[in-house]
Formats: sequence, C-alpha cells, structure tokens
Amino acid sequence: MARYGDVSISVIKRMPRYYRFLGNLMEKGVHRISSRELAHIMNLTASQIRQDLNCFGGFGQQGYGYNVDALHHEIGKILGLRSEYRTILIGAGNLGKTIAQQIPFEHSGFSLIGVFDLKEDIVGSTIRGLEVQPISELESFCRKKRPVAAVLCIPREAAQELADKLVELGIKGFWNFSHYDLSVEYANVALENVHLVDSLMTLCYKLSEIVE
Amino acid sequence: MARYGDVSISVIKRMPRYYRFLGNLMEKGVHRISSRELAHIMNLTASQIRQDLNCFGGFGQQGYGYNVDALHHEIGKILGLRSEYRTILIGAGNLGKTIAQQIPFEHSGFSLIGVFDLKEDIVGSTIRGLEVQPISELESFCRKKRPVAAVLCIPREAAQELADKLVELGIKGFWNFSHYDLSVEYANVALENVHLVDSLMTLCYKLSEIVE
Repeated sequence: MARYGDVSISVIKRMPRYYRFLGNLMEKGVHRISSRELAHIMNLTASQIRQDLNCFGGFGQQGYGYNVDALHHEIGKILGLRSEYRTILIGAGNLGKTIAQQIPFEHSGFSLIGVFDLKEDIVGSTIRGLEVQPISELESFCRKKRPVAAVLCIPREAAQELADKLVELGIKGFWNFSHYDLSVEYANVALENVHLVDSLMTLCYKLSEIVE
Repeated sequence: MARYGDVSISVIKRMPRYYRFLGNLMEKGVHRISSRELAHIMNLTASQIRQDLNCFGGFGQQGYGYNVDALHHEIGKILGLRSEYRTILIGAGNLGKTIAQQIPFEHSGFSLIGVFDLKEDIVGSTIRGLEVQPISELESFCRKKRPVAAVLCIPREAAQELADKLVELGIKGFWNFSHYDLSVEYANVALENVHLVDSLMTLCYKLSEIVE
C-alpha cells in the first residue's frame, strides 16, 4: 500500500533527521518553533523545510510556526514507526551483537524476535534477552514466527545467497551491513545497505581537501 | 589544498562505492570492463558512470572500456586513501570497540593511534593492540602525537563539547557516531555524521509502503 508513493526517496531520507531534532526539542521542553529557528538548528533553509513538509500536506501555520509535538508525531506516522515489524538478526559477531544491543529497534518501527549465527561458540549465548539460535533453525523459525525484516551482519560472501533464501521465507525488508550491495532485483523488497567504510572514505576525501 | 574543489559532494560520496565494486572485480580476476557491464553490476546507467568519472578527467577509452586496476588506483588517489591520517577513537564501549576492531582504517586513509574512554573498567584494556587511555590523557596525547582525525562513539550529551575541545587540539576531521549532528560551524573541519537509526527508519518507511 503505497501511502506516499509520489514522494521522492531523498525527501523520505531526510525525515528521520527531522524526527530526531524534533524529539530533542521536546526533551528540552520546546513545544513550538518557527520554521526559521528550526532551519537554523538543522542547518537548512526555512524554505527547504517548508518544501519537505509540504510533500505530506504541510504542518505549519502562518505566523505560528510548528507545533513540535504534533509534527514529531506526524513524521513518526509517515515513517511508520509504530509498525513493530517482526525482525531477525543474522550474524551475532561483534557487529551484530552491538547492533542488537544498541539500536532502539522498538522506537524505529521494528521488534527484534530472533538472533541467528553459524558459530558454535556464539549459538546459545543471550543477546538482548534472545538466545542466539543456530542457522539451521532459521527456516522453521521463519515458518512459525513469520518475521518480515532481517538485519544482515554476515560476511560479504554469504550475503546474496542468504538474502535469496530469506526472500523465499517471506522477508520483505533488509538492513544490510554485509559490505556487499544486495541485489535489488526482487520485486517488493525494501532494502537499506549500510556501508560504514564508504562514509569513512568520504571523510578521507574531505580531510584531504583541507589538510596538507 | 582543494584538489577537486569544483566536484560536488554527491559525486564524491559515490566514489567509495565505485572503489568497492572495482576492488571486488579485481579479486575475481576481472581487469577490464565496459561501462555498460559496470553499470549493470552497480545498478547505474553507463552515462551516469561516464558523467561521474568525467568530473576527474574520465578514465575510459572508447571501445575498450575501463582498466579495472587503473581505475581502482585512481579513485583511491582521488579519495586520498593512502593518507594514513593519524586518528583517535573516543568512547570504547560496545560500539567504539566494534568500530575499532572491524573497520579497516588503514585501507581507508586512516591510522588508528589512540583509544580513549572515561570508564575505569574500560581504561587499560587493549583494543586492536592499543591500550585504552583515560580521557584525562587526551590533551597531552594530542599535543605529543598530533592526531588529525577523531572517531566519536560517545553519548549525545558529550559530543559537542568534546568536539569543540578537539578542534582546539588540532583535530580536522570527525567521524561521528554520537546520535547528535555535530555543528559544522568550524571553518576547515571535515565531518561525517553516521546515524544508523536514520537508515533503519528509512527502511521502516520503505517497508510500510509494501507491507500491509
């Protein structure tokens, strides 16, 4: 159900940042803000903000500015953050464990219900209250619990094959940390590739522009 | 020294991905590729690739395609990946430890030379061959070793103040994981904010467009 199918992905990708800044304002007790002030703290222009929010109908009132709480709530709805998508994490090494422990899945639209790994010394340990299961249990788990999203913290070589299998098992969304761009050839599968090294290399370029 | 000052940052941000795909091709023994094939595996168009690479002078030859090794090498030079920027990491909790252990700093233009934390139970432990130092040693370390880049894996509340101090101590580049957008008000400071939760929320939106 494409709810905002005509909104470009680049606008969507900015929404979590609005959500974060608005949440910070609420924590500080700020419940009303002009588009100019919001633009200032977010390092944007007021007209960029108006343009972005107008994609969803616009939420400001001339001369009043934005109601911080209402806007935060609406952006949460746009992003679907109350969805509680049943999610599994595969690969409970250092990275997978950190992701499982530190990411606030519940506040981001997801609910972590299973963790899997290949390695015998990891299987059976507990992460975020979940016992790490052997990968051999993946199929029966998926048939029983019907997860819709998967976090992949596995080596590059294993990623595509596992993703293909997971799509067969009903997974509709991937958060992929595997240092491999998953193929986006599946119809109706949502995908976010996270490449930390790409970000580090971009920093390297920026640094090389300013440092001798 | 702005070497490619007229190239837009959106083009730059795509370069690590080219670098990654070209590296994978080399591993597979592929040393020559047409722009059409490269476009196919990268899910781009051949004209996008030509446009991107033309920003740096272009590297293809009509009818020959790209020399994979040469292009990989050139993009590495553009990104400055042999810079070995002296780098410190602050915050050696779960996330910081994983970053220190898993990120190939040396292949990304950086050299990790120091790790710092506040917590007594973390100080003194060893991560990637480096002893975690107390944050009280930060200033004298910076004056002696002159790091130019800092990875911040610290709580949001501490980020801006620490960044201000680090700029005073000569840090010119930040890789920021602190769930806080560092201010970019410093002149001549390079910054990459990494917000994993923003990516997860974007996935949530994409999923909500395709799942009931």
